[in-house]
Amino acid sequence: MAHWGFSVARSRTVRIVSNLSEGYERLKELVRSDAKAPNVAKLLTDLTSDALHFLSSCKQVPLASKVHGKRYFSFTVKGSDKLSRAVNEELFNPNIRRQLNHLVEGALIKLAPADRSRLLYTIAIAYCCASDLLKTRDQKTPATFFECLIGHLFARSFGVNPRTQVEVLHLEDEASTLPTDFIFDLGPAKSKFHVPVKTSTRERVIQVFAHQRVLDGVHGFGSFKGILVCLTETKLDHKRREVVEICVPKQWVLYYRFIASMHRFYYFDIPARYAELTEGNPPMPIQAFAKFFEEVNELAASR
Amino acid sequence: MAHWGFSVARSRTVRIVSNLSEGYERLKELVRSDAKAPNVAKLLTDLTSDALHFLSSCKQVPLASKVHGKRYFSFTVKGSDKLSRAVNEELFNPNIRRQLNHLVEGALIKLAPADRSRLLYTIAIAYCCASDLLKTRDQKTPATFFECLIGHLFARSFGVNPRTQVEVLHLEDEASTLPTDFIFDLGPAKSKFHVPVKTSTRERVIQVFAHQRVLDGVHGFGSFKGILVCLTETKLDHKRREVVEICVPKQWVLYYRFIASMHRFYYFDIPARYAELTEGNPPMPIQAFAKFFEEVNELAASR
Repeated sequence: MAHWGFSVARSRTVRIVSNLSEGYERLKELVRSDAKAPNVAKLLTDLTSDALHFLSSCKQVPLASKVHGKRYFSFTVKGSDKLSRAVNEELFNPNIRRQLNHLVEGALIKLAPADRSRLLYTIAIAYCCASDLLKTRDQKTPATFFECLIGHLFARSFGVNPRTQVEVLHLEDEASTLPTDFIFDLGPAKSKFHVPVKTSTRERVIQVFAHQRVLDGVHGFGSFKGILVCLTETKLDHKRREVVEICVPKQWVLYYRFIASMHRFYYFDIPARYAELTEGNPPMPIQAFAKFFEEVNELAASR
Repeated sequence: MAHWGFSVARSRTVRIVSNLSEGYERLKELVRSDAKAPNVAKLLTDLTSDALHFLSSCKQVPLASKVHGKRYFSFTVKGSDKLSRAVNEELFNPNIRRQLNHLVEGALIKLAPADRSRLLYTIAIAYCCASDLLKTRDQKTPATFFECLIGHLFARSFGVNPRTQVEVLHLEDEASTLPTDFIFDLGPAKSKFHVPVKTSTRERVIQVFAHQRVLDGVHGFGSFKGILVCLTETKLDHKRREVVEICVPKQWVLYYRFIASMHRFYYFDIPARYAELTEGNPPMPIQAFAKFFEEVNELAASR
């Protein structure tokens, strides 16, 4: 495990940094034992509050955004030149303490869609930014935090905990398994979901389609609905302080047509060039993740 | 581009290091303009001779091999603790200067299979090891060298130069292309080959199958024969000086059954657990790359 190596003088900050580190370990355990439990939400809100408190002591550095219509900034610890990942100005809202209760109560649907989007984005990005600044070369901690967040939200919404592998191949062979991010099985004669979770996909998205293809092949089309959940596709050039979105829309169309069909692509910060694919041929179901809470019952009911 | 940063006193070594760097740039150009030309082979043999000369001044460090039945060592510059990638003792033969002529003459088939295997392995690994020691954190140079080597051998054997993308999607859409390592098109009513080239695949092998699936989907089954060419699947733990083979044979079976069928998997150093798949269900065509020269006419003739 990488260490939280930021040395600070003020005891309040020291306590927060230690909370972020210990809370992360506890989060992994809680999600493993019962992802859908409300105490996971409670811990997620505590981690978000602590991360936001830490970030409030940081400076916001404006970035040159090459993404049309979106503005981004990075956090940096005062006196350091280390930058956090890029944060979407419009989606980030540090004043969400009171709204965090909706997460604990499992009542995100009660928020207006725009507020829900900002709350979800802020929860996802705050911890990741704190980790970017407090750890060195650690991609795993933010990715695991994001997986835990999605694991909880899906498990609580569906009312079942996920598995992280699925049995494939029977016949004369020994049973084999396909490792995946999450599988949600709502029970006999009900829906099953294949839910890959990524902070970004870039050209690695081909794995998402290919895994779905294996499930379609082994279990039949429609047996597992594929739902990709992705934070963003931004990439920050730390030297030039410039943000771009790495998108391969033509590849997506090929993969969607010729490898496997996915049921949903949810983004916290939808890349413009993927949003266009919703009008393409065939139209692809790419949506803001906030929409999930409006359609979860429909998703669960349909086969 | 990363720089050749090794500082040496002896002028002979300085000249070789400079040859390796300049030769690499010339190799990329030559392959781009005419991959099948004999002067590419000449340059490949010069680079191999220079790399072997440089390596002869290095120390061989034995490694703990966790691969049953195979022994590996690394090269290291005397007085440094930087290690080259792992080298298979049985396949590496530094005394191949005279055999290199077979490469220049396009007559590798004249060598006995075991000699051909060792010659090919030595050509592929010598330059890569030199690059490992002379450059820092540069994965691209060895990978590109290996691509150039395979590009030349295939182009010369088939008598046609490769393309690196293939048109896909027609109908009402604008033409789209799929970027690939190599496509060899032997002409109307003749074979076409999709040839991904990797120094190692690990879990990224899913991309190979998924690209083949797109070609099967767009152009029909059998239109493009898929041939993976891979150097090895070894992984060196630099601290513990321990070699393992990273293999995912159960995943391979799933991908081969449910994503796409490949025509050949050629390895310079065949991983034991993939060799077993040739007896599996279905049997998978995994072979030593030296075999390519025996069956190339058959491959080209069949549709």
